[in-house]
Order: sequence, then structure tokens, then C-alpha cells
Amino acid sequence: MNWTLAARAAKMNPSVLREILKVTERPGIISLAGGLPSPKTFPIQAFADACAEVLHTDGQAALQYAASEGYAPLRQAVADMLPWNVDPSQVLITTGSQQGLDLVAKVLIDPGSKVLVETPTYLGALQAFGPMEPHPVGVASDDDGVVVEDLVAKAKDARFVYLLPNFQNPTGRTMTEERRAAVSAAAAAANLPIVEDNPYGELWFDEAPPLPLAARNPEGVIYLGSFSKVLAPGLRLGFLVAPKSIYPKLLQAKQAVDLHTPIFTQRMVSSVMKDGFLDRHVPTIRALYKSQRDAMIAALQREMKGLDVKFNAPKGGMFLWARLPEGVDTVTLLPKAVERNVAFVPGAPFYAGEGDPRTLRLSFVTASVEQIDIAIAALAQTLREELVLLGDKQLAAAQI
Amino acid sequence: MNWTLAARAAKMNPSVLREILKVTERPGIISLAGGLPSPKTFPIQAFADACAEVLHTDGQAALQYAASEGYAPLRQAVADMLPWNVDPSQVLITTGSQQGLDLVAKVLIDPGSKVLVETPTYLGALQAFGPMEPHPVGVASDDDGVVVEDLVAKAKDARFVYLLPNFQNPTGRTMTEERRAAVSAAAAAANLPIVEDNPYGELWFDEAPPLPLAARNPEGVIYLGSFSKVLAPGLRLGFLVAPKSIYPKLLQAKQAVDLHTPIFTQRMVSSVMKDGFLDRHVPTIRALYKSQRDAMIAALQREMKGLDVKFNAPKGGMFLWARLPEGVDTVTLLPKAVERNVAFVPGAPFYAGEGDPRTLRLSFVTASVEQIDIAIAALAQTLREELVLLGDKQLAAAQI
Repeated sequence: MNWTLAARAAKMNPSVLREILKVTERPGIISLAGGLPSPKTFPIQAFADACAEVLHTDGQAALQYAASEGYAPLRQAVADMLPWNVDPSQVLITTGSQQGLDLVAKVLIDPGSKVLVETPTYLGALQAFGPMEPHPVGVASDDDGVVVEDLVAKAKDARFVYLLPNFQNPTGRTMTEERRAAVSAAAAAANLPIVEDNPYGELWFDEAPPLPLAARNPEGVIYLGSFSKVLAPGLRLGFLVAPKSIYPKLLQAKQAVDLHTPIFTQRMVSSVMKDGFLDRHVPTIRALYKSQRDAMIAALQREMKGLDVKFNAPKGGMFLWARLPEGVDTVTLLPKAVERNVAFVPGAPFYAGEGDPRTLRLSFVTASVEQIDIAIAALAQTLREELVLLGDKQLAAAQI
Repeated sequence: MNWTLAARAAKMNPSVLREILKVTERPGIISLAGGLPSPKTFPIQAFADACAEVLHTDGQAALQYAASEGYAPLRQAVADMLPWNVDPSQVLITTGSQQGLDLVAKVLIDPGSKVLVETPTYLGALQAFGPMEPHPVGVASDDDGVVVEDLVAKAKDARFVYLLPNFQNPTGRTMTEERRAAVSAAAAAANLPIVEDNPYGELWFDEAPPLPLAARNPEGVIYLGSFSKVLAPGLRLGFLVAPKSIYPKLLQAKQAVDLHTPIFTQRMVSSVMKDGFLDRHVPTIRALYKSQRDAMIAALQREMKGLDVKFNAPKGGMFLWARLPEGVDTVTLLPKAVERNVAFVPGAPFYAGEGDPRTLRLSFVTASVEQIDIAIAALAQTLREELVLLGDKQLAAAQI
């Protein structure tokens, strides 16, 4: 049988990240690669209680088909927890916030549509948008987020700009209050819609990040959120908040995709969230991740001394971004690191255009502090050997 | 803010079925409209035991990110339960079989691609394919399924034919052994891939339906299955089985859509299925639905006597298909039926081309036997009044 593929399918490629993660499943590897929340933070007992309660009190409804919009009390809870005036009718429960990206792509992207993204940006978003065949364009970005002048210069005819203002994946950077105000004003002036992705916003260490962009211009922003990082990713539960003008189309796309998000898990999470559970639970995640970020930074300072490695100190989230010395390519470095039982993610795949080969992403949340120490030492040793090799090559080249 | 929609989004319309279902939520309405399994059949205690076990024995893994392919023991269980030789590596767990339709569309449909469907066909499939902008073409169909001659005549350049051989939605009809053999041979000869949807196959009343089309030509068929009708739809758990040549593309599309199907519910169902649970549970569903089908047929024979109403006697599944007398339009009849507290689904939306306005779909599984009796009597009364109205109009027209 000769299957004729759609043009978009011919362009699909295996996720680079996923292929890397497969390697990291080898026993003995310490992975700083994947964005896996620490399983220590999963409130297993609370989920067990919630399952029992949901099945006992309303089991038939929890197992039946349900509304595409989502479970009403959960939509209300989402509206209540967001820091601006959200009507529950604007909340759409999604099967993970990844699905929100798929719905946005279906509703807003035609083949060839210009879509603006940060430099670098979340790889999963590029993959979710990909099947709708956009033309992704990277906007110049600095430590505070996208550069407003470049955003304005590229805004014409763009369908939207995709932004992660809080503890961004992959860089861990956070958009400052000043930058948010400027980006919000510039986007509104240019009639440029914003798709704001905020999976990590609750994972702040010392102080909450500034208000979301959606809070500044609700009519101009589709906001994506997730329960993956504050409760557990294995339930695949997220949400989006959309202006009333665009919500019905997103809902119709959602109906066609999976009818509705599993109602059983929606009711589970709704039950878990009662009585302010997140207010007690999330601070424990913040404290754990802060201690692990501190451990990673201390290890990097200690182990990378003299190696000309630049790295940032994220104020929250799960990831830290590093840049290695001139001449190093993190894609070729990775297998050598894996030989030393440590894995990371090369930075280049996160760019819409040509990536910076010297960059890499390190997750500080999955490995323990002890493992972080071992892994960073192994990474430094791998880098030292690579630099010797590069020096030898330069020497050899000079001698020819 | 001026949101520019993708061309495909402009074509999206609210689900007709869903708008109807909203009406049926009015208190006092007996709904024969929705395809809701009887909640009496949901094995609530088995799910409660499974939740407790999964969270107790492997809670962290059940709440973490997981493989896009699905939970390995569940893929194995799916392969084991299918009546042909399936390798678990060909099984992809989906967030309901509706998601399987979305993935198939993404991988196989370009804008304008010809896609063949039965006459009539499952409305949700037309909606799932819609965003990829196919040109759906209805193949002539009789009581035994698609007509082979018409299938062959329309096969050229079609990307695939979408078929529901067992207790089809909406008609309840089943493809005979002879027709399956002929369709399978004709599709293979025409190099026409088949997408086979089988959500209802286990719900047979007197004897199991013939072998699936996938069993006859595994390389030429993508097979979609579901746990919605044998366990519960609220978990949104389905699967597809694909030839090895096409599986990687479906998997990549799946990764982009929601990373993976909720692993917690996958492990729940895997736990429930242990020790042959379905072999004990599914016969109880069959017996219940058979008694309800019998009740509906008896009620139709009793109440519709003399009204020239045609209806079939499905050998399984959830739906019965009826055709009302000349001149009646079920779309205009529906609100009148709702006034008498009974709801059904008009048949016309289920057609790829122009629908037959006299047809309607009746579900015999959600309402109880007592409710079925009341509902069919009310429907017959609605029809009688409609016929009087039509007769008066004809009389008035003749008198002019």
C-alpha cells in the first residue's frame, strides 16, 4: 500500500528533545535535560483522596462524556486564581497547555503566516505550530525578553507573537515590568495579537513576577496556563483564557480534536484544589526548586571556574541557560557528556532561525542536589577535554 | 484588537449535535439524541480500586510526563485483545479515538484532498477532518455498508476511505462478511488506504461481527479503537493501530498535539483490565443494550403503526436509524418533539453531501426502557400532528 502523505507531514521531524530524552533513560545517567518536575512534589495522597471522593460522590458523571468547555467548577477556579478580571466563560480547559498551542495554531495560522517568537523559544511551540505551516520569525531578545524595537519592526502582517514572560523555557529569563509595559503597548499599537504562555509563573523563588500581559490588554491576548508544574504533568491538564471574540473558534477546534479533556481528571483536580490547597502546596515546590537552583549555580561557579562559561541565575521556574566558550558546539558535546553519565539539551533547536551552537539548557529540578553536584563536575570535565581537543586542532591547523 | 483567522477557522461551525444536546439538558426531556453510554454500565468500584492501586504502587510515575506512544502494558493489552497479529509497537494510545481522527487528518489530508466517507457517516469524523480542508465525497451505501462499485469508481486520487463497519454511527448498520471481503480486495487493488473506526464492535448482541478490515490487510489500514464504550468515555482513552510505514508520522503529530495521553488514566485502565475484567464486564453491557434495543423496536412497532415509518434493527451498538414519511423534515420536527419532551438527532448533518431530510438517529442506550416507551409515544404523537399539518398544507395548496 502506497500512503500519500499530506505536505505538512513530510515536514514533520522527530522531536530532538525526545530523542535526547531516550538516551537519558539509560541507567546511571543523571539528566539535566528534560523538563520533568520533581516527582517528590506530586501530592499523591491528595490525589488518592480526590479520586475516592469523585468516584464516591459523583462517579457516573465523572466517567461520562462532558462539555467541551471544561468542568464548570474548574473553569471558575481558574478564573478565580488569575490576577485579573476573568469571566469563567472565557476559560477553556485543555488536555495540557500543549493542546492550547495546537488549537491556537489551527485557528490563527495559514500556510506561510508569519508568527513571531522569542530568540530562543519553546521547542514544543515550534512543533505544535509546525503542522499549520507558519513562517516563524525570531524577534531579537535580551535578558529582559523580546526587544521592543525589533518586535515593532517585524509586527506587520504577523498573525501573533508567542511569548513566555515568566522563567522562560529554555532560558529561564523573566520579562521585567518595564519591558512588559512596553511590549503590551507596542503590540496594541501595531494591532499584533499576543499568545502568552505561562506554565512556570507560580514557581517564583523570592517574589512573584510582574502581572501577565493578558492582564494589561485582555482583548489582545490568548493566555495559556497549566497544572503540570503546580500539581502533576501526568494528568495533562491545562487551560487557556481567550477574548470573547476568538473563544468560539478555539472551542470548535477543541471539540473536533478530542471532544473534551478527560472529565475524571478535571474533577480530581477541582477536588484537590478545594480549600486553598495550592496556597499550601506551591510554596513547598518553590522552596525545593530554589534550593536546587542555588546548588546548580554554586556547582557551576565551582566547577566551571576559568572555563569562560556564561550562565544566568533564573528567579524561578525550572531551567538555567548557559553559553560555552567560542568554538564549542553543544550538539557534538552532548554524546561525550552522556559518556560521562550526564545529559543536557543543546540550545540550537530552540531557535526559529539559526541557533547559537554554544548554548545549552540545564534543568535544575529533576536531579537531586547531590546529583547536580556530580553532573556539573562531569560536565566541566567533558568541557575541559573538548577545549583541549579544540586547542590541539587549532594548533594543528596553525602548524599546517 | 483585530484577530486575523486562518482560512480553515472561518469554515468551522458549531457542532449541530452539540447545539441539540444543549436543548436536551432541559429538565424533563427524554433524550434519544446523544451517544452517551448508559452510566449504569460504568464500573465505578473497579476504577476506585484501580486509582488506589496505581497511586499506591507507582504514584510518582503515574503523575509524571510519559512516552508519547502510550503506556507499554496498555499497548500490549490492546495488541493482545485485537483479533489479528498486532505488534505493540504499532499501537498508539490516543486521547479518545476522536484524537485518532485528528492525527489521521493531519498526516494524510492536504487542502482539497479527496476523502471518501460512507453515506451517511459519523459527524465527528467530518468535524475532525474539517480543519485540514479535505473534499469529502460520499460513497453510495446500502444496508450492508458502502457499495463496492461506487467505491471503486471514486477511489482515484482519494487519500483514504473512512469506514465504520460495525454498528455504524449514525445508522447502526453492520458490514457483512461478503461486503468486507469485497471492500478489502477492491481497496487493495485500487491502492486506496482505509481508515477503519471501530468504537462499537464489542457491543454485539447475538454474535460477534465479522473480522475487521485491518485484519485482512494490516498494511493498508489505520484502525481506530476506544475504551469509551466498554469502560467509560469520561477518561478519553482510545488507540490506533497503524502500519509501520505510517506510524512514525502519526506519533510525531501526537507529540505536537498533547505530548502524550494522560498517563494516570492509562495506568488506571491498564489496572482495571487485568485478569480478564473486560471478558466479565462487556457481556453485561451487551445484555443491557440488547434489552433496550428490543424495547425501542417494540415501541416503534406499536406507536408508529400506520405512519409509514421505516427503521432498522441493529445487531449491536447504540443507534437505530429511521426514515419518516415523504414531506417530513426532521430538522423542523425536532423543536416540536422537544416541546413534547423528547429529543433525537436529525439525519441530514451526517451526510458529506446533501442529506436526506426524512432521516433521524435514535439512541437506545441512554434512556431506560420506561423512558423509551414514553419517548417513542411522544415522538409518534409529534409525527401525527406534523402529518396533519402537512396534509392541511397540501389541501390548501390544492384549493388555491
